[in-house]
Amino acid sequence: MMNKSPRRGRRTGSPDTRAQILDVARRRFLAEGYEAVTLRSVAAEAGVDLALVSYFFGSKKGLFGAALALAANPAESLALVLEGEVETLPERVLTQLLHVWDDPENAAPLRAMLGGAAQDPAAGVLVSEVVQREMIDRIAARIGGADARRRACEFASHLGGLIMARYVLHLEPVASLPADEIARSYLPAMRHALRVRPAPSRAGR
Amino acid sequence: MMNKSPRRGRRTGSPDTRAQILDVARRRFLAEGYEAVTLRSVAAEAGVDLALVSYFFGSKKGLFGAALALAANPAESLALVLEGEVETLPERVLTQLLHVWDDPENAAPLRAMLGGAAQDPAAGVLVSEVVQREMIDRIAARIGGADARRRACEFASHLGGLIMARYVLHLEPVASLPADEIARSYLPAMRHALRVRPAPSRAGR
Repeated sequence: MMNKSPRRGRRTGSPDTRAQILDVARRRFLAEGYEAVTLRSVAAEAGVDLALVSYFFGSKKGLFGAALALAANPAESLALVLEGEVETLPERVLTQLLHVWDDPENAAPLRAMLGGAAQDPAAGVLVSEVVQREMIDRIAARIGGADARRRACEFASHLGGLIMARYVLHLEPVASLPADEIARSYLPAMRHALRVRPAPSRAGR
Repeated sequence: MMNKSPRRGRRTGSPDTRAQILDVARRRFLAEGYEAVTLRSVAAEAGVDLALVSYFFGSKKGLFGAALALAANPAESLALVLEGEVETLPERVLTQLLHVWDDPENAAPLRAMLGGAAQDPAAGVLVSEVVQREMIDRIAARIGGADARRRACEFASHLGGLIMARYVLHLEPVASLPADEIARSYLPAMRHALRVRPAPSRAGR
């Protein structure tokens, strides 16, 4: 399957080059963690221009998602729903989470990533860093106020519990409840974590 | 490390025999799931008396915990705290969970079990069955009432979220909060899931 022909100098934007960048990125992320890796250092080691890495992957979180072969990148999904009213952030995050994870093609590599994080310390540190920097820190910045990071961490923990029950262990009935019932069960805890009240239009429970 | 001397007939209660029973149990649990395996069928395949399996492991959940090399068996820990008032069940479960998982010797094999469940479908089915039969069903039976199983499943999911945040991904600050702060953060959601009010002595928030 591998192209064995020797290559010299700076590589161009072929599928082969993309795969080689991802090999370098995966190895460096696992060896050094998320924070220490830069697009520039990956480009240098892969022998390509920084612009090519940016062109392929956009950002470090994009490179991370591609390196772990995630069909849907949770950090990028979150970025999409952080815009908008804080009061309805729990609803938007929950809707997006169900949309992503209810698709088995997205769920399989995400589940494998979590399994790896539980079993391999280097993978655990990497996934933890990504969740903290790209998700919890962003939510904390968005909600602001006292204890923002702690509230964001509790919020993320409730999402983790839903993922564990519905998509990892497939615990019934949570695994097969429709989206509106999941919302009824989980939104109160998610809102409590962020200390936001239900949005007015949904306040009638 | 393995004792290669040939053995014949029914085995006696040596450490070697115990290890052989566990080998059989581990393989059968993964191949057939939790429900289908009986102490009797494991004893038969291992060529030992049923009484010896009972003597070593006590129950099927005990055999499961030993087969997965769990230093602390969550199903047995839960059984210990299911006695007592339903109103204070969330407190007892949370205290027990922190007691078990805060000890790294307990946490490591439990984390490996969850990682395996996320990565290997057979392990996933097995762990799911154990959690549903030995934990969610028991909690549902204890709390009773409408939707008992759904409430027990949500409750378990909140525990899963705490485990994911504090012990798998080590998300700060949840990973390093003291027990009373974890209780302040998580008990409201745990109580909401079971639909129990705070116990009177702690009702002042």
